[in-house]
Amino acid sequence: MHRSLVFAGVVCLVAVSAAILLRPAKIARAASANAPIYLANGEMVNPTNYREWIYLSSGVDMSYSEKPANMTMFDNVFVNPEAYRSFQATGTWPDKTMMVLEVREARDKGSINQHGHFQGLDVMGLEVHVKDEKRFPGKWAFFDFDKPTSNGTLIPSGASCYTCHAAHGAVDTTFAQFYPTLLRVAKDKGTLSAEFLKDEAAHAAPATK
Amino acid sequence: MHRSLVFAGVVCLVAVSAAILLRPAKIARAASANAPIYLANGEMVNPTNYREWIYLSSGVDMSYSEKPANMTMFDNVFVNPEAYRSFQATGTWPDKTMMVLEVREARDKGSINQHGHFQGLDVMGLEVHVKDEKRFPGKWAFFDFDKPTSNGTLIPSGASCYTCHAAHGAVDTTFAQFYPTLLRVAKDKGTLSAEFLKDEAAHAAPATK
Repeated sequence: MHRSLVFAGVVCLVAVSAAILLRPAKIARAASANAPIYLANGEMVNPTNYREWIYLSSGVDMSYSEKPANMTMFDNVFVNPEAYRSFQATGTWPDKTMMVLEVREARDKGSINQHGHFQGLDVMGLEVHVKDEKRFPGKWAFFDFDKPTSNGTLIPSGASCYTCHAAHGAVDTTFAQFYPTLLRVAKDKGTLSAEFLKDEAAHAAPATK
Repeated sequence: MHRSLVFAGVVCLVAVSAAILLRPAKIARAASANAPIYLANGEMVNPTNYREWIYLSSGVDMSYSEKPANMTMFDNVFVNPEAYRSFQATGTWPDKTMMVLEVREARDKGSINQHGHFQGLDVMGLEVHVKDEKRFPGKWAFFDFDKPTSNGTLIPSGASCYTCHAAHGAVDTTFAQFYPTLLRVAKDKGTLSAEFLKDEAAHAAPATK
């Protein structure tokens, strides 16, 4: 997840935004309040309590392409407590893991702040990366939330967010390399992916002529 | 708390760093694992599980003085869940509130990130703002943690962090103006301080010749 989803997902978002339909009232409730809940039309119910989940990290203006971001924004990532505790014990993610990426406005001047940036009231994007082994052929899926309070639309499995996370995710297609407390656990448990270790080795290798 | 403590607190930190003593084994346990615990010498026991508390917000390179920060750093703020829930209901802080400021290294290039900053493994500072009405004459106190795992040293009540928070804190001497989800609650509950509202009015007023 993380900003790859924001940037690589732009095409996806345009493609799916037209597919936002009326919400059926029938909801297939999951066992836990912190597990994914889907509507009959395949949408994901908004996990409105995600700000009370476990915080993983924040970035500012992150971009995985050569082009920098055109405005300052923060991204905050949260995970459901059950998945976090499992990761602490095992170094990887259990079924029903939900990671929420919240993109939030950055403000500079305000109150007594003179330099740098702090976070404002506006949530500018919301996305979920969910592990649901029986539901998705690739085990994981991305959902985009058109508004902070709306339900989520599935991003099709061929989208670049999936291929990028598979090619570079440090643990089980997630960008644990950007979540410092998890990265330490994954190192200790030996669960870093072959793809990530290959990227790290390439960074560490001296440049050739 | 927040970066006023980092910057206004520099003098405090130098003054108290010489006072770090051997840790007495006797600990006055509090009723809750998320409530402050003090040693016989007045130090605060490190709330090592703060990363599992409620996340409030992050900033990057924030500075309340005219001088900008000389390196890029993130600050993350967490609060104990009991205090967070009370704030949601009342718009202000209960006794035994503990807010943790974690200052963390910022990294730019790494893995597939090309622009912006993400958070690294190094915790560069750790401070607590605690409300303990019977223990501190001003109800609140600041503690500095010399290392991420050490116990905390009380910052003397005359330090500039106290006066700055009293003069500008949006809610009960805390910088709720930088914690977007709390700012919204405080606005709704009408608990914003007179000091903060005065600052806001000054910002909103047109400049005079």
